[in-house]
Amino acid sequence: MKALVYEGVGQRAWKDKPKPAIEAPTDAVVRITHTTICGTDLHILKGDVPAVESGRTLGHEGIGVVEEIGEGVANLKKGDQVLISCITSCGRCDYCKQAMYSHCRDGGWILGHLIDGTQAEYVRIPHADNSLYRLPSGLEPAAALMLSDILPTGHEIGALNGEVHLGDTIAIIGAGPIGLAALLTSRFYSPARIIVIDPDENRLAVARQFGATDTIAVDPVETVLKMTDGEGVDVAMEAVGIPETFDVCQRILRPGGRLANMGVHGHSVEFHLEDLWIKNVTIRTGLVNTNTIPVLMRFLESGGIDAEGLVTHRFALDDIEQAYDVFSRAASEKAIKMLLTAE
Amino acid sequence: MKALVYEGVGQRAWKDKPKPAIEAPTDAVVRITHTTICGTDLHILKGDVPAVESGRTLGHEGIGVVEEIGEGVANLKKGDQVLISCITSCGRCDYCKQAMYSHCRDGGWILGHLIDGTQAEYVRIPHADNSLYRLPSGLEPAAALMLSDILPTGHEIGALNGEVHLGDTIAIIGAGPIGLAALLTSRFYSPARIIVIDPDENRLAVARQFGATDTIAVDPVETVLKMTDGEGVDVAMEAVGIPETFDVCQRILRPGGRLANMGVHGHSVEFHLEDLWIKNVTIRTGLVNTNTIPVLMRFLESGGIDAEGLVTHRFALDDIEQAYDVFSRAASEKAIKMLLTAE
Repeated sequence: MKALVYEGVGQRAWKDKPKPAIEAPTDAVVRITHTTICGTDLHILKGDVPAVESGRTLGHEGIGVVEEIGEGVANLKKGDQVLISCITSCGRCDYCKQAMYSHCRDGGWILGHLIDGTQAEYVRIPHADNSLYRLPSGLEPAAALMLSDILPTGHEIGALNGEVHLGDTIAIIGAGPIGLAALLTSRFYSPARIIVIDPDENRLAVARQFGATDTIAVDPVETVLKMTDGEGVDVAMEAVGIPETFDVCQRILRPGGRLANMGVHGHSVEFHLEDLWIKNVTIRTGLVNTNTIPVLMRFLESGGIDAEGLVTHRFALDDIEQAYDVFSRAASEKAIKMLLTAE
Repeated sequence: MKALVYEGVGQRAWKDKPKPAIEAPTDAVVRITHTTICGTDLHILKGDVPAVESGRTLGHEGIGVVEEIGEGVANLKKGDQVLISCITSCGRCDYCKQAMYSHCRDGGWILGHLIDGTQAEYVRIPHADNSLYRLPSGLEPAAALMLSDILPTGHEIGALNGEVHLGDTIAIIGAGPIGLAALLTSRFYSPARIIVIDPDENRLAVARQFGATDTIAVDPVETVLKMTDGEGVDVAMEAVGIPETFDVCQRILRPGGRLANMGVHGHSVEFHLEDLWIKNVTIRTGLVNTNTIPVLMRFLESGGIDAEGLVTHRFALDDIEQAYDVFSRAASEKAIKMLLTAE
């Protein structure tokens, strides 16, 4: 089969690899019908995630058809159309028992990281019963694919960790795929005001289409404070992953405010505890658990969320190298999510 | 009347001052029967709280008898024995409507800070209906006085902000009055293991009397990780207020852990987001709201908590300067809380 293989810093190739087989009774092998590229894949290519070894197939998002199942798989059968969670989880360890699948003792984020991923014609999924979700028929693949990672991340690590409440003023720093997913899913909780901050005017236009009430391209701290009578926001969501954007978040929190960090950070940050100790704030971090995939899927079925609107570019899976080229110039290409379809 | 007056950095005096009078219809004047000294008062004397002006009466904890009430006070009458909350709150503003009395628009921590405090023969309490609590008869003053600040702070900013759950492993860094109050009130939620960290062996002995299952004097990070099979703790409570102790807390959190910051910090800290972004942790800060005074008072009435055990030294109110001298050498004097009683 063909797979998109990481071959060391800056190197990737769409090349032949052996088709995966069942290795444990709880495995399934899935034939990929749709996959996409995540900003994290670009980080891996830059060498920011040294745990990824040369020869690894990338990708942790995907939709496909069950090709083969191990003897221990109870809830899936060959031919089922499934969504692949970016998080693999056994469902039985102490962390799984708290729905903290992100820290599963025998899983977590391993696809396209510690084991071969979804940017391939076939993928092996461990703990298939808990890591795959049967897709309802009639669901648009472009929408369903957003359930592998970005919609649950925006929902769980943005809206839920930020405790978005009715009438809140929220600010989302970074209008990339994760920031926009946080925007879409925060709207479930009816904030009164959604401020989106990004230097890219095109992304701000997309944010307004998705329901942002206010957008800011420059001087975010001053502008947010001015917009809120000097009070700050109830919720600040960090969707970039650099110290500067974390700093914006901590400076615009009102007393009692919540900071939801969604970004993947490579550096420590200066945390202004000398100002914040007295402000009754909450800061939460996290990797997605994807335990809210089933509830989000209901919204895709009812049409209650424009997940398909996140897909800006479509390619054949065979053209994935071209898709990577476009995605690596995301801002100038006005790219959010790429849909890669196997013929 | 006599009052303990801040007279600029390093200067204090027990001296004559005019007796306070009703200034607003919602005020009460309380004759102080018992008060105490807080670590914050020592910070003020060192000049760490520049908002405190020379001439200010210090103190934000106390018990007394209502001497006079304004026309707008509905729930108190002259002669009532009352506990004074360290937090003054109107009960009517947007923050008060969320029980966030710490950020009351016309209150918060103002006693002994922005208005004259409780280390005096009389004190004026604004918004008396919401800021004073009638004391049940028969309650030991030494115990009840701990409800002004340290027990609700340990409970709300430690146990509740740390979300202490049944069976958790918790670590408290700093075994001063606030750390010990967090220990006593965390026990309500039945953690399986309570680790207390402090360089002072005497304070650790007190912590063990109060229910600590483990105590650590040196190498806290290494020792906690060793004690927990490398996993870390569910809850880390910071009860000192310096970067070093915050750092211990962030390094001993397990995935899903909660860091409850109780310390008053004068400096920013280095926050290791490069390690913590993926760990699904929660960090909370805050000033006490004292909205849990009523529930804590029930435990004092039932004898369910050894609040009196926090009082190590007793003085007449007239000897408050001597009490300050002893409290400023707290470690060598084995001092936790001082009880000052007006004759």
